[in-house]
Amino acid sequence: PPVPPGPKVHATRGEVWPRPASIRRSPGFYLLRPLSFYFQITGRRCALLEPATTRYLRVVQAEAAVAAPRPSRAHRTRAERNSWARAWRTDPLFRGYLRSLQVEVEDCEDWPWPGMDESYQLVVDDSAPGASKIKARSVWGALRGLESFVQLLSPSDDGATLLVNVTEVDDAPRFPHRGLLLDTSRHFLPVEDIKLELDALEAVKMNVLHWHIVDDQSFPWQSSLFPELSESGAYDPSQTYSPENVRDILEYARLRGIRVVAEFDTPGHTRSWGEGRPGLLAACHDSSGRPDGTFANIDPTKPQNREFLKQLFGEVAAVFPDPVLHLGGDEVPEFCWNSDPGVRAYMENRGISGDYRRLQSEYLRWLTLEVQRLNRTPVVWQEAWENGDFAANEVIVHVWLGDAMDLINKITRRGFRALLSETWYLDHLQTGWEAMYRIDPHNFAGTPDQLRLVEGGEACMWSEMVDATNVHSRVWPRAAAVAERLWSPRTTRDTTAAARRLEELVCRLNRRGIPSSPANGPGYCPR
Amino acid sequence: PPVPPGPKVHATRGEVWPRPASIRRSPGFYLLRPLSFYFQITGRRCALLEPATTRYLRVVQAEAAVAAPRPSRAHRTRAERNSWARAWRTDPLFRGYLRSLQVEVEDCEDWPWPGMDESYQLVVDDSAPGASKIKARSVWGALRGLESFVQLLSPSDDGATLLVNVTEVDDAPRFPHRGLLLDTSRHFLPVEDIKLELDALEAVKMNVLHWHIVDDQSFPWQSSLFPELSESGAYDPSQTYSPENVRDILEYARLRGIRVVAEFDTPGHTRSWGEGRPGLLAACHDSSGRPDGTFANIDPTKPQNREFLKQLFGEVAAVFPDPVLHLGGDEVPEFCWNSDPGVRAYMENRGISGDYRRLQSEYLRWLTLEVQRLNRTPVVWQEAWENGDFAANEVIVHVWLGDAMDLINKITRRGFRALLSETWYLDHLQTGWEAMYRIDPHNFAGTPDQLRLVEGGEACMWSEMVDATNVHSRVWPRAAAVAERLWSPRTTRDTTAAARRLEELVCRLNRRGIPSSPANGPGYCPR
Repeated sequence: PPVPPGPKVHATRGEVWPRPASIRRSPGFYLLRPLSFYFQITGRRCALLEPATTRYLRVVQAEAAVAAPRPSRAHRTRAERNSWARAWRTDPLFRGYLRSLQVEVEDCEDWPWPGMDESYQLVVDDSAPGASKIKARSVWGALRGLESFVQLLSPSDDGATLLVNVTEVDDAPRFPHRGLLLDTSRHFLPVEDIKLELDALEAVKMNVLHWHIVDDQSFPWQSSLFPELSESGAYDPSQTYSPENVRDILEYARLRGIRVVAEFDTPGHTRSWGEGRPGLLAACHDSSGRPDGTFANIDPTKPQNREFLKQLFGEVAAVFPDPVLHLGGDEVPEFCWNSDPGVRAYMENRGISGDYRRLQSEYLRWLTLEVQRLNRTPVVWQEAWENGDFAANEVIVHVWLGDAMDLINKITRRGFRALLSETWYLDHLQTGWEAMYRIDPHNFAGTPDQLRLVEGGEACMWSEMVDATNVHSRVWPRAAAVAERLWSPRTTRDTTAAARRLEELVCRLNRRGIPSSPANGPGYCPR
Repeated sequence: PPVPPGPKVHATRGEVWPRPASIRRSPGFYLLRPLSFYFQITGRRCALLEPATTRYLRVVQAEAAVAAPRPSRAHRTRAERNSWARAWRTDPLFRGYLRSLQVEVEDCEDWPWPGMDESYQLVVDDSAPGASKIKARSVWGALRGLESFVQLLSPSDDGATLLVNVTEVDDAPRFPHRGLLLDTSRHFLPVEDIKLELDALEAVKMNVLHWHIVDDQSFPWQSSLFPELSESGAYDPSQTYSPENVRDILEYARLRGIRVVAEFDTPGHTRSWGEGRPGLLAACHDSSGRPDGTFANIDPTKPQNREFLKQLFGEVAAVFPDPVLHLGGDEVPEFCWNSDPGVRAYMENRGISGDYRRLQSEYLRWLTLEVQRLNRTPVVWQEAWENGDFAANEVIVHVWLGDAMDLINKITRRGFRALLSETWYLDHLQTGWEAMYRIDPHNFAGTPDQLRLVEGGEACMWSEMVDATNVHSRVWPRAAAVAERLWSPRTTRDTTAAARRLEELVCRLNRRGIPSSPANGPGYCPR
């Protein structure tokens, strides 16, 4: 059929992403004057609320900037504009001006946590605008409600106000863990770019930044106990995160109700660790028994390495307050374990020669117990669990490979909690948002108990080919598909309807300074 | 094998991209103080030279910014820094300071054109720094030589100067047409982003911006004769190019020796044209003979449409000075030609009922002759030639689909000139820079006469999924592979060596404010 002119997908106006559990928009509407509108805190004055309402007032301004008269309208006379305003006032659906929104919270909390309550109710009242309010048990719900409220706004046609329909929202997330993994080892990401990602996470109600902070290629995290790790292991002194940088990011995330789950992946993926810490890694030896100059995997057989790890993870737990800590445990190759004489001798003495799975699982079990002693719940990638020997509920298992649904079924049947990332790898360019939208972490034949063990999931931005030049446009809009899948009811599945709302979301992110790329093909964002 | 820490590919220092036809770098070196270095125009003082040397002095500054002392060096005492400088001076390879570079041009020209001479010689003299110079027959060669010179510079270790080796370059491009297509119809690109792309083209010695300015989805070009085209056919009044915008872009390109080849694609790909011009497009009719409200293809059977096109292309030729004009002619569907009663009656009268190829080829032949009357050489996409009836050398044929080498062989055997874009579609995310680098427009068994008819090619950035948020990181670094293929000798083919130079180029583009994405996997740009 002929190609129609204009955008491929027409954006909605004033729809919320992710779609709330329950939302009823009525045709009646208010107008909102951005310069006089305010949020009125009527419940507890939680410390997080003041910065949140200030932040969202700025978003309201940004939305209003779109409503500025377009050039073709700029030539209207004042009289014409007045008659336009009068036309609004005589519209039977016009309910008046919305001057403020109440925000009523029962319980204050300071740090987001895995069990936090993000539910809220939002009413834009049909008859009494002053009764419009966000009601939430916890401050986290209020943050989510504020986000929903600003997303209900759309430019009115008079060029100066925003329009908001009479609306009732009753909302809560389906999964408690809704995250984005950022990898700052393959390429460094400046603090400001991480903050921009946090802005975007807030906009789609995601609540976890999984910070894959170090890996084989570089060690940008400055340890206070072991500064040599980043001094020798970072790409460059300019490409490191100081303790102050980390605090800055944690605080920025906290204010937005976003947890920061740090990952220190061991015993593989640690090549850069060895630069500042000779002896930490197993050394590959050639067939004649000489070191060949290459290294891989932490050597867990040396007591001094165990001691180092205890101290390092102690510092990590002191720096990152979240109760969850990601221990990695993925892709552990046999080399250099299989040629390092010390490792081989140890394994021989223990009678486990050649059983590298055993070496790995004993190491990770040990690390898990150490981390539990620090009051942290460990997460491990799926193969650490598959090759491992964990007691039920000792670790959360992160699924990224293979038949994910079958694996989640197995994991939860054995009483473990699970996170999904398979299909949600943002470095897979061939995976579009629709495919990410369709997969559902509950899409397996599990008992209600099993379903409850699925904590959610994460979109993963592995950064081999990504740095500050392209990270934002690569993450967005696709990560938004994951955000909706994890927040909205399971029945929210229609990709055609989602496409129209996503088209609106992309422009909303752009207006907030987040360079999301196009979602659906030809189109544009109104100015 | 174990993963090494650090960048996957180590960048070169001071290598030129695209690789010159002949370059000899010697170990002897000069230091260059960015704040006192200058270009000395010793030949003709062409109008283009002054802005070019000013521009390249700024690039020198940007390169020097990288050489600033790194944090770990910032703590050196002044005495330590002095001793460091003394160490340079006693290095037997140190040839002294390069205070200036002569630029000597024989012929001035004002507008870049298809036959322009871009050859140049560049010498950084071994014994007499003051004799160092760029020598070029035409001003265009001087521009290319200036680019090569700044790419020879690399940060020295003293944190204040740039290092340049004794070097001899004798250089000229292999193909005269080395372009990038930007599509501003599927998504609009702001003027500043087009200029940024022109900066990048200059950096890799590309000399054609193929501006695919309008298409089915939107008509952003403001015609002075027919303003209704963009008034009704643009996405939004803010998403148009005014005559002043176009002049601005043309001038920016001209100063950099870059031709702007506009494309007004007909008779298909014109849906947005019909918005402001009722009657221009054929109207689809349903089986009962009623218009179904959809349109496709210009209706070439109406005399008033031919008259409109004559006037429109007359204006296009007046606005865009380049002697080449792209007429499109690709992907012409039968609909709505096959149901529009006027088109059907015309074809019946002519005795060509059902022969839509004939209708298309007669139309394009007519348009070609009109455009030739305007002193423009037309380019058409391959199917317009395949389905067409052109006399030899009447059109340049642009190859984008299928067995490209076989087709170029056919095209040139019949005496037509050819351009290659197949494999160089930047919207194909699965095509990496290596694949783009390997294909060569001369890779067919043609006679020397045939080879001479291959004018070059273009990387194509179709913008269905691309707007200002991601266009730069999607074009670069891959378009640079095309730039080197079209400039450098055919024997420059080693992707391993190219990878190291490309790694350097990416950081160079980043320093100039062009957000090229990573080329080769994990790594970083030094600050």
